Amino acid sequence: MIFQSENLIEVLLKVRDRKPVVHAITNWVTGNEVASALHAVGARPIMAISPEEVKEITSKAGALVLNLGTPSPARMEAMLLSGRQANQKGIPVLFDPVGVGASEFRIDSSGRILSELRVRVIRGNPSEIGILAGKGGQSAGVDSIEGPPVMDWAARSLSEKTGAVVVASGPEDLIVSSEKKAIVENGHPMMGLVTGMGCMLTGVIGAFHAVENDSLTAAVSATAFFGLAGEQAALKSNGPGTFKSAFLDALFSLTPDQMRKGMKIKS
Amino acid sequence: MIFQSENLIEVLLKVRDRKPVVHAITNWVTGNEVASALHAVGARPIMAISPEEVKEITSKAGALVLNLGTPSPARMEAMLLSGRQANQKGIPVLFDPVGVGASEFRIDSSGRILSELRVRVIRGNPSEIGILAGKGGQSAGVDSIEGPPVMDWAARSLSEKTGAVVVASGPEDLIVSSEKKAIVENGHPMMGLVTGMGCMLTGVIGAFHAVENDSLTAAVSATAFFGLAGEQAALKSNGPGTFKSAFLDALFSLTPDQMRKGMKIKS
Amino acid sequence: MIFQSENLIEVLLKVRDRKPVVHAITNWVTGNEVASALHAVGARPIMAISPEEVKEITSKAGALVLNLGTPSPARMEAMLLSGRQANQKGIPVLFDPVGVGASEFRIDSSGRILSELRVRVIRGNPSEIGILAGKGGQSAGVDSIEGPPVMDWAARSLSEKTGAVVVASGPEDLIVSSEKKAIVENGHPMMGLVTGMGCMLTGVIGAFHAVENDSLTAAVSATAFFGLAGEQAALKSNGPGTFKSAFLDALFSLTPDQMRKGMKIKS
Repeated sequence: MIFQSENLIEVLLKVRDRKPVVHAITNWVTGNEVASALHAVGARPIMAISPEEVKEITSKAGALVLNLGTPSPARMEAMLLSGRQANQKGIPVLFDPVGVGASEFRIDSSGRILSELRVRVIRGNPSEIGILAGKGGQSAGVDSIEGPPVMDWAARSLSEKTGAVVVASGPEDLIVSSEKKAIVENGHPMMGLVTGMGCMLTGVIGAFHAVENDSLTAAVSATAFFGLAGEQAALKSNGPGTFKSAFLDALFSLTPDQMRKGMKIKS
Repeated sequence: MIFQSENLIEVLLKVRDRKPVVHAITNWVTGNEVASALHAVGARPIMAISPEEVKEITSKAGALVLNLGTPSPARMEAMLLSGRQANQKGIPVLFDPVGVGASEFRIDSSGRILSELRVRVIRGNPSEIGILAGKGGQSAGVDSIEGPPVMDWAARSLSEKTGAVVVASGPEDLIVSSEKKAIVENGHPMMGLVTGMGCMLTGVIGAFHAVENDSLTAAVSATAFFGLAGEQAALKSNGPGTFKSAFLDALFSLTPDQMRKGMKIKS
Repeated sequence: MIFQSENLIEVLLKVRDRKPVVHAITNWVTGNEVASALHAVGARPIMAISPEEVKEITSKAGALVLNLGTPSPARMEAMLLSGRQANQKGIPVLFDPVGVGASEFRIDSSGRILSELRVRVIRGNPSEIGILAGKGGQSAGVDSIEGPPVMDWAARSLSEKTGAVVVASGPEDLIVSSEKKAIVENGHPMMGLVTGMGCMLTGVIGAFHAVENDSLTAAVSATAFFGLAGEQAALKSNGPGTFKSAFLDALFSLTPDQMRKGMKIKS
């Protein structure tokens, strides 16, 4: 295995120790969940969106998370301002193309983000990754109906086009860079039925990336950790409402040892 | 009884099977709850609000839910754009006049929505329905203090004026079309004390309407189902916080048989 | 002790009895939590932000809560419109300088609010109070890293400069007016790890102030009550997710007798 367990666990420990600030320009539907997830893992969220302050706030952050849900021209402007600032300062930029297949506006906006900014990690569901890669995939609303015909090829292609590590979340999470690949098998089916899980995962990868410069290591560690938290939450819940509470608890309390024993990563 | 239990149950089954996309232009206070409720019943929410994309997103949806909470001229523009598109395409439009009694701006905005669009279902609390009908009622903030003196008459009058099925939620839910009437006695007092319950109900009626073209059947089925979920949640909770989690669980897991045995509908 | 327990308890009883409307112009990240907390204590939240309606809505409210999270020029305009209206009508104005240290824009915005409006209560974390007072303090994102070197002096100084009662929340809550001081020792460490707790507290102080004209009494009562609810919630939760649900339950159900026996206030 190319990923050493101890290296992946160390990223979690660094997040809890250093409590990095994560600037998330996210949508107003799941913004609270993203903030709650970031707090639960020990990070410090800030969700500024005004052109008047975003550059300054990005400058002080350890990572910048851009989320395409509920897009508008004003949010796009804020994302690009912050993204350029982050690129200049060497702060990692992550992108979550929520519902990119839902409108031309989202496709154009994603195109601008990926062409004008250097993005380190792109995380989406299979259809979002397929559509961004131009390799097919079908969505309904912001949900994935069907991934691209060849998921690996689409993710690899998007990674090569953008230079980003690409995370396609699903029953199995596929994570690829231009050279490497990992499959994370942690998680629980309930995670696909709960609002905001994808947005939270991108936020958490942001927190991990704030303390770990290698994008692939940050993404694999965060994704396995997040999936494990979902497995724990599923044991303590009776549906999507109690799941969400139990999931935040698990993000907060999951131990290095539970991570060591529970991670299922193939490469 | 004019409503056959099996017909009402079939609407729930269709929602869970077809997973309709519901476009909700809603407020930023309860948007997450509406999305969570829609996911819990098996639907696919999307909350787009930008003029740049709302028409396109409405076109692909099975229902459009317009919610007056936190209104602004920009949201109004988006609602009217989406509403016209939905009307052209035959997609059902639902309207939730949150806090209509709170300001002149909300009254004017509601007037525009009801005069410029064909709305299939209006759902509000008793004072909102009374005020919209011009038949009295008193509110405080977005809560109902007192319904109109004659609730039936107000709801019937609003239905006749607009052509919409009117749902006045309360300890008893009154549902009227121009010709028919139903009273749903399911529910629990805690539902009146929890943020976002009304907004969630309107969203859920939207999901039911996306798979059932008869507005009255969709509204009665969704309202009874929603009330039953509230009854289940009350048994598993100790206050408004645990209630909300248990309520989402119940929306997710309530069975056709529980609906068959538990529905209390008078007509 | 200068605060009589029975006087403090009476404020809670009045909130539950009169159900005051609280107009909160707050951020979109924690807006739902603030509304939920207000509902849980028995108040009626309304979160209007449009210049088209904010003056009218403030006029009908019992208190106005201004929250600096996710600021923008448009929100600032709404806050100032509402604030002037509240000042004219004698409606108490409360201010929560969320993340004031995060940007120049937040510092300038806070300066405008405090110079153009008469604010009755300012509530923040130690660094926010220190920074507003110009007496030091360090923040990361919207979290406090370090209070000012002399917290008492900073809070007293801010109170003298603005005429407001100042609440610096932390492991101990310091509450000062120009002449008096109280320390509330209720609370639980989990409260510092959960998204939105500060915003909720400011909202709850608003509800208490809506029924109690003395700012210091309202702030001390609400802060002790809120801390006690946190203590109760901690006993029934396993992390930040279940804590939040249990906390809303506790706000809803905490009894006068529990308040009588549990309050820890030093002056």
